[in-house]
Amino acid sequence: MTESSHREMWEKLDLDLDAHDALLEVLGKFYGDIYMSQQNRLQGAEYLDFVLSEVHGLRIKELQDAKAEGRKVVGTFCVFVPEEITLAADAVHVGLCAGADAGTDLAEQLVPRNTCALIKSFIGFKMAKLCPYTESCDMIVGETTCDGKKKAYEAFNEIAPTYIMEVPQTKTEAARALWKSEVLRYLAEVEKLTGKTITPERLKQGIKTTNAKRRALQRLTSLRAADPAPISGRDALLVNQISFYDEPIRFTAKINELCDELEKRIAAKGGIAPAKTPRLLLSGCPMAVPNWKLPYVIESSGAVIVGEESCIGTRNSRDLVDESGETMDEMIDAIVDRYMKIDCACFTPNTERQENVTELAKRMNADGVIHYSLLFCQPYTHEALKVDKTLQAEGIPMLSIETDYSMEDVEQLKTRVEAFVETLA
Amino acid sequence: MTESSHREMWEKLDLDLDAHDALLEVLGKFYGDIYMSQQNRLQGAEYLDFVLSEVHGLRIKELQDAKAEGRKVVGTFCVFVPEEITLAADAVHVGLCAGADAGTDLAEQLVPRNTCALIKSFIGFKMAKLCPYTESCDMIVGETTCDGKKKAYEAFNEIAPTYIMEVPQTKTEAARALWKSEVLRYLAEVEKLTGKTITPERLKQGIKTTNAKRRALQRLTSLRAADPAPISGRDALLVNQISFYDEPIRFTAKINELCDELEKRIAAKGGIAPAKTPRLLLSGCPMAVPNWKLPYVIESSGAVIVGEESCIGTRNSRDLVDESGETMDEMIDAIVDRYMKIDCACFTPNTERQENVTELAKRMNADGVIHYSLLFCQPYTHEALKVDKTLQAEGIPMLSIETDYSMEDVEQLKTRVEAFVETLA
Ligand code: SF4
Ligand code: SF4
Ligand code: SF4
Ligand code: SF4
Repeated sequence: MTESSHREMWEKLDLDLDAHDALLEVLGKFYGDIYMSQQNRLQGAEYLDFVLSEVHGLRIKELQDAKAEGRKVVGTFCVFVPEEITLAADAVHVGLCAGADAGTDLAEQLVPRNTCALIKSFIGFKMAKLCPYTESCDMIVGETTCDGKKKAYEAFNEIAPTYIMEVPQTKTEAARALWKSEVLRYLAEVEKLTGKTITPERLKQGIKTTNAKRRALQRLTSLRAADPAPISGRDALLVNQISFYDEPIRFTAKINELCDELEKRIAAKGGIAPAKTPRLLLSGCPMAVPNWKLPYVIESSGAVIVGEESCIGTRNSRDLVDESGETMDEMIDAIVDRYMKIDCACFTPNTERQENVTELAKRMNADGVIHYSLLFCQPYTHEALKVDKTLQAEGIPMLSIETDYSMEDVEQLKTRVEAFVETLA
Repeated sequence: MTESSHREMWEKLDLDLDAHDALLEVLGKFYGDIYMSQQNRLQGAEYLDFVLSEVHGLRIKELQDAKAEGRKVVGTFCVFVPEEITLAADAVHVGLCAGADAGTDLAEQLVPRNTCALIKSFIGFKMAKLCPYTESCDMIVGETTCDGKKKAYEAFNEIAPTYIMEVPQTKTEAARALWKSEVLRYLAEVEKLTGKTITPERLKQGIKTTNAKRRALQRLTSLRAADPAPISGRDALLVNQISFYDEPIRFTAKINELCDELEKRIAAKGGIAPAKTPRLLLSGCPMAVPNWKLPYVIESSGAVIVGEESCIGTRNSRDLVDESGETMDEMIDAIVDRYMKIDCACFTPNTERQENVTELAKRMNADGVIHYSLLFCQPYTHEALKVDKTLQAEGIPMLSIETDYSMEDVEQLKTRVEAFVETLA
């Protein structure tokens, strides 16, 4: 596919071509600085580089081709939207979370200033006509998780019709019943959108495909327990980010190949950083493409990241759907149960997350944890205080960072992270 | 009752006596400046002055007496906790919302800096041992409304065990079912706490008492449509604030007396401000005692406040529980339906609120609306943008204010409000 056919496609999607060119240029440079500068990268990283270089190109072309064949594209902002069901209707499921601060000024016309960068970003991308994924969607699904998103979707709905799922706030039986009814409502909506009936066979396949993807990500997580660390945190984050965009079966195969390579590297005692490099677990808010600021700061400060306890990380891959169900009802229940395990800070209480962070830090042999909250994210900023207490009791040091997508605080972050890393040495 | 017996009571409640003395002094002075300086006040305001002067005295004594008789005290932070049920178990129902910034520094150890002042206040009051209501409670009830409160209760629960009700986020049938199950769970919890069985007769009485209180408040609202305005916004706000603290039957009688007086005043064309004084509706976040800053600023800027579209205002009094039910089930359903009508910004969508603000502004003959959001309150800050658009379409001007409990911005607020009032003249 040529550059010019890309441009034609973007034009058809009604992107702002000049602004989009500028974005791609910045993105390319940023990626070069942060990714291409790494030493000892895996061969499998070629796949990552390729996917990223074609994130607005070939992958969008695939979406257009799918649409031309009559398939539908569903965009989401949260790991609560059941991909199993989307896939069972032969639709494409993509994440629309955005990690750059393009369009922020525009977004502030629709949402308050005191809104987290992730929300401003997806609204800004839409308003500035920068996101070919958003423009490719036949249905956009929001959810009632945090106040920021819940209310932002009302504004977003005026510029991009948005279907809303109600995610409960506790894990009682009554809350589960609400969630089950929402899962069934989503299933009916997807059937309506696609004109396809979700049969038990199709749903089983959707569950299998999604579980396989999650298993590959789990495999990657486990391999990162090795010292020396076999893969950089930046690359592992990229793998998780791409898991929201790429075709799931191809992605799963590629990540398993990458894991094969990692196993060999580990057997050969190789790594991307010397053994005994301070190992850090990242924990907190999701980091959407191209939000690589903090990982870059950390890995330029003499440490290596060995895990991401976030939705673009283990919160999305940790739990599988039980595959033993055969009837629709059994499978729906298995899906409902799996999603009710998500330990998002939007739940109260959310003590599972404390346990999960601790377990992951220990399993990854982390020397410390960096908790990352987006500025104005109330759920995760609250939990930062709790995670800190829990980890303290376990003797695991934690640094709490609140930041956004701007580059203004990079030097300040570097100073804080370096000081923290020094205490671990 | 003497000063010294008050002190003895406060000591028993383990208040920090010195800090509490200082608080009462500031509160007394503040009340004097803002309330006692008013001209043409109603005779009925004597009741308000008395209740406020004894807010930590006689009323707390009454709570202690009730407890000595074996009755229980239930504290709440939100109008979603069904008072009908509390009363049906012969328990006392009090609001714990706090409107002063005492204890903020302490609160910031438990909740993030970017938390609204109301939340910091109730946590700070508890930590600084300043609130005899909180200390009198046998049960404290929180709810999953906004992220700020939902997560703050987790921290608060460590210092004051808190029972949590899940309030849904939409108004679908499934959401109503969740809420009904939460209402039933609350009923069982109150029965357990009090050791009393809530019979249909008792519940009917609880509904009657609460409806009567709301009817008195509705009557007050309606009378404020008159020009000249018969009562100041400050006094009307105080009535609403006291409705959360005082014994409901006494309160209802007193407010009806006050309304009788208002009717006479209106018939005599009397008022607290000259006819044609610019009339403003306040809309937004609740203003808890002693958060009188903005009303004072407004009424010192040549305007009069003619309504409060907030939970300490019409959002709490607008809807009654249908009284036709006879069986438990019918009455519970009526309660559930009534509470599902609350147009809190925590719901999505929440279009009813747009309609309700517009209707109230028109009914009160308001010349404009001042929308008030607490800093960091995401739900109401989002809705400020929507309310503005709705009112604009109706030709009603709106000023959006974001503030907190500090006095630092008083001059700046005054400048903005005065400029707004001038445009209305
Ligand atoms: S952090 Fe919570 S709201 Fe955000 S994507 Fe994850 S589950 Fe959804
Ligand atoms: S980072 Fe926090 S505030 Fe932002 S969308 Fe996620 S949960 Fe909401
Ligand atoms: S504004 Fe909402 S959360 Fe606050 S008291 Fe009212 S109903 Fe409850
Ligand atoms: S003012 Fe807003 S943020 Fe504060 S408690 Fe009420 S709804 Fe929550």
